[in-house]
Amino acid sequence: MRIERVAIIGVGFMGGSFCLALKNVYPSMRTFGIDINEQAIEIGKELKVIDQGSTDISELKDFNPQLVVLASPVRTFIEIAQSLRELIDKECIVTDLGSVKGHLVYELENILGPRFVGGHPIAGTEKSGVQYSRNDLFKGKRFIITPTTFTDKDAKSLLKSLWEEIGSFVEEMDPHLHDYIFGAVSHLPHAVAFALIDALIRLSDGVDLFKYPGAGFKDFTRIAASDPIMWRDIFLENKENVVKCIDAYINSLSKLKILIQDGLEKELTLYLEEARENRNKIDRNNG
Amino acid sequence: MRIERVAIIGVGFMGGSFCLALKNVYPSMRTFGIDINEQAIEIGKELKVIDQGSTDISELKDFNPQLVVLASPVRTFIEIAQSLRELIDKECIVTDLGSVKGHLVYELENILGPRFVGGHPIAGTEKSGVQYSRNDLFKGKRFIITPTTFTDKDAKSLLKSLWEEIGSFVEEMDPHLHDYIFGAVSHLPHAVAFALIDALIRLSDGVDLFKYPGAGFKDFTRIAASDPIMWRDIFLENKENVVKCIDAYINSLSKLKILIQDGLEKELTLYLEEARENRNKIDRNNG
Repeated sequence: MRIERVAIIGVGFMGGSFCLALKNVYPSMRTFGIDINEQAIEIGKELKVIDQGSTDISELKDFNPQLVVLASPVRTFIEIAQSLRELIDKECIVTDLGSVKGHLVYELENILGPRFVGGHPIAGTEKSGVQYSRNDLFKGKRFIITPTTFTDKDAKSLLKSLWEEIGSFVEEMDPHLHDYIFGAVSHLPHAVAFALIDALIRLSDGVDLFKYPGAGFKDFTRIAASDPIMWRDIFLENKENVVKCIDAYINSLSKLKILIQDGLEKELTLYLEEARENRNKIDRNNG
Repeated sequence: MRIERVAIIGVGFMGGSFCLALKNVYPSMRTFGIDINEQAIEIGKELKVIDQGSTDISELKDFNPQLVVLASPVRTFIEIAQSLRELIDKECIVTDLGSVKGHLVYELENILGPRFVGGHPIAGTEKSGVQYSRNDLFKGKRFIITPTTFTDKDAKSLLKSLWEEIGSFVEEMDPHLHDYIFGAVSHLPHAVAFALIDALIRLSDGVDLFKYPGAGFKDFTRIAASDPIMWRDIFLENKENVVKCIDAYINSLSKLKILIQDGLEKELTLYLEEARENRNKIDRNNG
């Protein structure tokens, strides 16, 4: 099957970038955008990210997509999937760009059947909004595909090729393992960054600390400028892992606090050295 | 007085960059580097960061510097200041590039007298080592000068002009206020970043999490690649503020955890929205 009609649910930065990437490889690809925000659809059309668009999901029926991509905040997925059932052809593949997989993949599979294939592109920035869409956002980045034993093999292969064609490295992963790993390496850092800004608000007592960003502070807090609705949904949908990671994190930070408070010079040096060494492994592993 | 001979104690990234910046403005400036690491001195000479150098601080006597800059980890300052007293002319100004001011400024003033002027350039990266020195590191950046009522006025003016000539914006600040502010906006974020890596080490149980950096993770953890000895010293010397900030931070993060755990959707949205809004103030305030 050659994909010629793709529908994006959620006309934002991620969905928009996926459309542009597809159109870059397949100039004849037609895209239809659904969003609750009329303005996003207008901008999407102006920027030729989508060819058509509507705030009414039932308009997908006439478009008859061969692939539907859920690109809205993850907590909207279930309701959207329920609506989609009545609207799309039974051959139509459904996938998503969500940062949470785990139980969501199994729930979506229950609703949509084996033609649902979960996915998570490891790309993106703190930016939100379709106006920031880039056709090269996923180039050279990983795309995690999270099939189950129930997933349709052809649907999986087709989706895999599509992502490879737009330049991503596709890696298969169990949906629950995905949520453990990205709970730790992505959701935890975002929680940590949002909380840092919250702490600085509380500590800005008599002095506006936000006037004094130290060196590296802007980079460090950039992810706290991410979309609040998107992140609220990720935190709530991956609650179990996120809470577990925050607990582990508070333990690590409390340990560091005690080393500082008690002036344990040797142990403090070891703690910081071990952290630096492990941080530097990332640069070595990932170019 | 025209400064022609500058000694740097600690031939690293910060001290080296200061030498290069000075030489860029005053090509005839002569620099002498002291370091416990012979290799740093060799590299510094090769790269023409320093003209001369030694591992033996007493060699400063013959060089007869007009300005001495403490650029080593902050916990070495007191001992160095005590040695300096015997070695330098009584007209020689002493300053530092340390990230902690507060009590240290008063202690150094006690040893060196009013010719000591504390300073802290708000610049730098996670890099360490004289080989990374850049003559434009301080250009367009803030330099915090922390005089006391006891500080020599001429020494202060001279230092101020020197930093302005290399392109920094000089801002005066009380030494203790400095430690409160930078405890929150710089030392806390570093503690938070080091602890994040520590937590990921602990959470890497059966799976190597460092193989899966999410989007933004590299930027977010870059500061955890900073020099362990430098940061051990900063944490210990600014212990009171750092511990207070870590406590405030753990409160903020615990609050976020509860909002997630209890699924308090509305409050969670507000928390994340407030964080994003305050984070974005930094971009607006600081270009």
